[in-house]
Amino acid sequence: MTTITRLDVRDIRFPTSRDLDGSDAMNAAPDYSATYVILDTDSDGGHQGHGLTFTIGRGNEVCVAAVRSLASRIVGLDLETITADMGRFWRDLTGGDSQLRWLGPEKGVIHLACAAIVNAVWDLWAKREGKPVWKLLADMTPEELVRCLDFRFVSDALTPGEVLSILRRNAAGKPDREAHVRDAGYPGYTTSAGWLGYSENKMRYLAREALESGWEHFKQKVGGDLEEDRRRAQILREEIGWQRSLMMDANQMWDVDEAVANMRSLAEFAPLWIEEPTSPDDILGHAEIRERLAPLTGVATGEHCHNRVMFKQLLQAGAIDYCQLDAARLGGLNEVIVVLLLAAKYGVPVCPHGGGVGLCEYTQHISLFDYIAVSGSLEGRLLEYVDHLHEHFVDPVRIERGRYRVPESPGYSITMHADSLERYRFPDGDAWQQ
Amino acid sequence: MTTITRLDVRDIRFPTSRDLDGSDAMNAAPDYSATYVILDTDSDGGHQGHGLTFTIGRGNEVCVAAVRSLASRIVGLDLETITADMGRFWRDLTGGDSQLRWLGPEKGVIHLACAAIVNAVWDLWAKREGKPVWKLLADMTPEELVRCLDFRFVSDALTPGEVLSILRRNAAGKPDREAHVRDAGYPGYTTSAGWLGYSENKMRYLAREALESGWEHFKQKVGGDLEEDRRRAQILREEIGWQRSLMMDANQMWDVDEAVANMRSLAEFAPLWIEEPTSPDDILGHAEIRERLAPLTGVATGEHCHNRVMFKQLLQAGAIDYCQLDAARLGGLNEVIVVLLLAAKYGVPVCPHGGGVGLCEYTQHISLFDYIAVSGSLEGRLLEYVDHLHEHFVDPVRIERGRYRVPESPGYSITMHADSLERYRFPDGDAWQQ
Repeated sequence: MTTITRLDVRDIRFPTSRDLDGSDAMNAAPDYSATYVILDTDSDGGHQGHGLTFTIGRGNEVCVAAVRSLASRIVGLDLETITADMGRFWRDLTGGDSQLRWLGPEKGVIHLACAAIVNAVWDLWAKREGKPVWKLLADMTPEELVRCLDFRFVSDALTPGEVLSILRRNAAGKPDREAHVRDAGYPGYTTSAGWLGYSENKMRYLAREALESGWEHFKQKVGGDLEEDRRRAQILREEIGWQRSLMMDANQMWDVDEAVANMRSLAEFAPLWIEEPTSPDDILGHAEIRERLAPLTGVATGEHCHNRVMFKQLLQAGAIDYCQLDAARLGGLNEVIVVLLLAAKYGVPVCPHGGGVGLCEYTQHISLFDYIAVSGSLEGRLLEYVDHLHEHFVDPVRIERGRYRVPESPGYSITMHADSLERYRFPDGDAWQQ
Repeated sequence: MTTITRLDVRDIRFPTSRDLDGSDAMNAAPDYSATYVILDTDSDGGHQGHGLTFTIGRGNEVCVAAVRSLASRIVGLDLETITADMGRFWRDLTGGDSQLRWLGPEKGVIHLACAAIVNAVWDLWAKREGKPVWKLLADMTPEELVRCLDFRFVSDALTPGEVLSILRRNAAGKPDREAHVRDAGYPGYTTSAGWLGYSENKMRYLAREALESGWEHFKQKVGGDLEEDRRRAQILREEIGWQRSLMMDANQMWDVDEAVANMRSLAEFAPLWIEEPTSPDDILGHAEIRERLAPLTGVATGEHCHNRVMFKQLLQAGAIDYCQLDAARLGGLNEVIVVLLLAAKYGVPVCPHGGGVGLCEYTQHISLFDYIAVSGSLEGRLLEYVDHLHEHFVDPVRIERGRYRVPESPGYSITMHADSLERYRFPDGDAWQQ
């Protein structure tokens, strides 16, 4: 047995707001941050589980406080007991303490904190099995996977029986798809040239650099001044041509009617999708935007969609063309898998949210598992890539010609270097002493 | 000018889990708690603003941490600057710091924390004006009220022009309604006999006691064992008869199909509404439940509905017959008013969530304002009453013959006695030393 003996949580922040990298219309000056969890165990191999939840700076201390409040619910448990009924563990962590549940339920700070812990358990489990997380998942039988899931509040849209059907349908093709993606990689897209606040010269330079590196899919931020958004789209189309994909991301800046009006104007630049056109809570608003904009552009959202109940409704309402789940906004991998399965049932491609710190490290596992075992398809799938802060990870993502290479090290790829954890500790690390 | 010079936040908890009062199917053993905010000012009168957000125990420390993280956004501001454009202040507090906004947006811990601060500002404003909050609001012109509101993300359903129309339509009748409610009080309902875990004898005794006190409307908790729920409904109907209202509250225990099946069984007892039949995030699920149960019973929800965008959709989707907004789950009174106006536009009565600690003190102001100035009606309106912890308030609610008496003291009625704040301070107050 492997007992979890201790939970250590750290407030890690990178002073990214000193540059303007990562700026968008809603998030003007983020300091990419992590509420970083380490689970110690009594295993002979000294195995640890690492997990993080992503925030953008101030308030990371509130997530740290929430993890501390949850710690007693996991310290002392055996990994084997957890993994024998992972769905039950997840339900117990996210809802088993009714007093803590009140703070959500299953949303905001308390759910972000759960995600860090849950993902650390998956990292620990995969390390114990000597496999990367995607492979741990892909090797499970349909029955083993179902035991990892909690169907509460989604049983009207997805049953265990339907999940078994989806997984069994895809089982035969798993080896071929695994071999294919190991060989070819998983297609990505880049926002490198598309952030707000970049000069025309910088945009053109970065777009050309990305093209030379082999990128085929590009995203730009919108949601500031419309004429400025149009000008930047024009620049990007001039650089990337009209055969490659251009996506747009408004980061929740618009109300419903504004979103429709602005995207009718920007449709001239043939965006593949408009991302976060309005409030992430507005399921019916997204459905209306999608209906009024079709067929000019698709609608995408999800990085602020806080749980499976919200994704269930986005899919039921026909509100989205692309599902952009977040690996740590949802309550960790168990809930992510439920959303992958919901999306597969409704035929909507999943293009997870990347960027920040550690999200690309997480999402490569999610998309690989989705391709190999759940959706069985790459059609319409693109995995976001942002070239920020990967140097702090022991096993960072590897990109070649605009595609993610398959990670092979055991775990969830989220372990940071010890010296990064020291240097960027807030507020006492060296990086914060200037 | 009245400058806010300091924000003090306290972790106040009442050990209510030692009894079984307040137990329901989801919340088995709550310790009713408050993240309690005091705004100090430099006014000659020594005016303070008091506000709280309600939690049920563990995790209150996380809300306290969130208030601390928000404090610098209000300390140093002048009350007059805030109230000159209260809508802008609200938008700035809830979304102006993009780093803190990431923790929600507008949901969970960070929004609960905003509520405590926002409500403290209203308490301060009303005390400065020498009026109870309901009267401060009822005396405003339509234009003054509109300036208190933020229409972001609801402009597709409610515009400033529509708000002006609603308020102007009701303006002439305000003095008559104010006089009427001062005379007759505002109708309430009680859950005193209906909590889970009470014996039959205790239920009968409490129901008879409530009838003798003049209560006409009763609520019971459901969501445990169905036969047990039926047995308790039978007892209540035997005691209160069939002319009085009986409501049922499932506290989110069911999935959609379960809710329909269980309520088809419980419909025999003619419940006025089923409250929180499923996940509070499930707008489409509530709509489906309502459609499938009509006309057997109405559907109510709202105490965990986290912002105006969610209420907008509940109303757009025709998902609810009763809107049970929470005074501190929403981001304070400004957002509450937006929801009152949305509900008025869609013709849905507002029956605010009461109970816990301080919620009844808040909601009397909300329902009085709704009646006098917004909906102009008492039809279908009932204000929840729970007889818990009122003794800790300086200006507690007063109930006569099952009706709320109108509060007349300046402020939002939420100021606690200094010795209660001392005794129930967690973890060092005397009440926690046993």
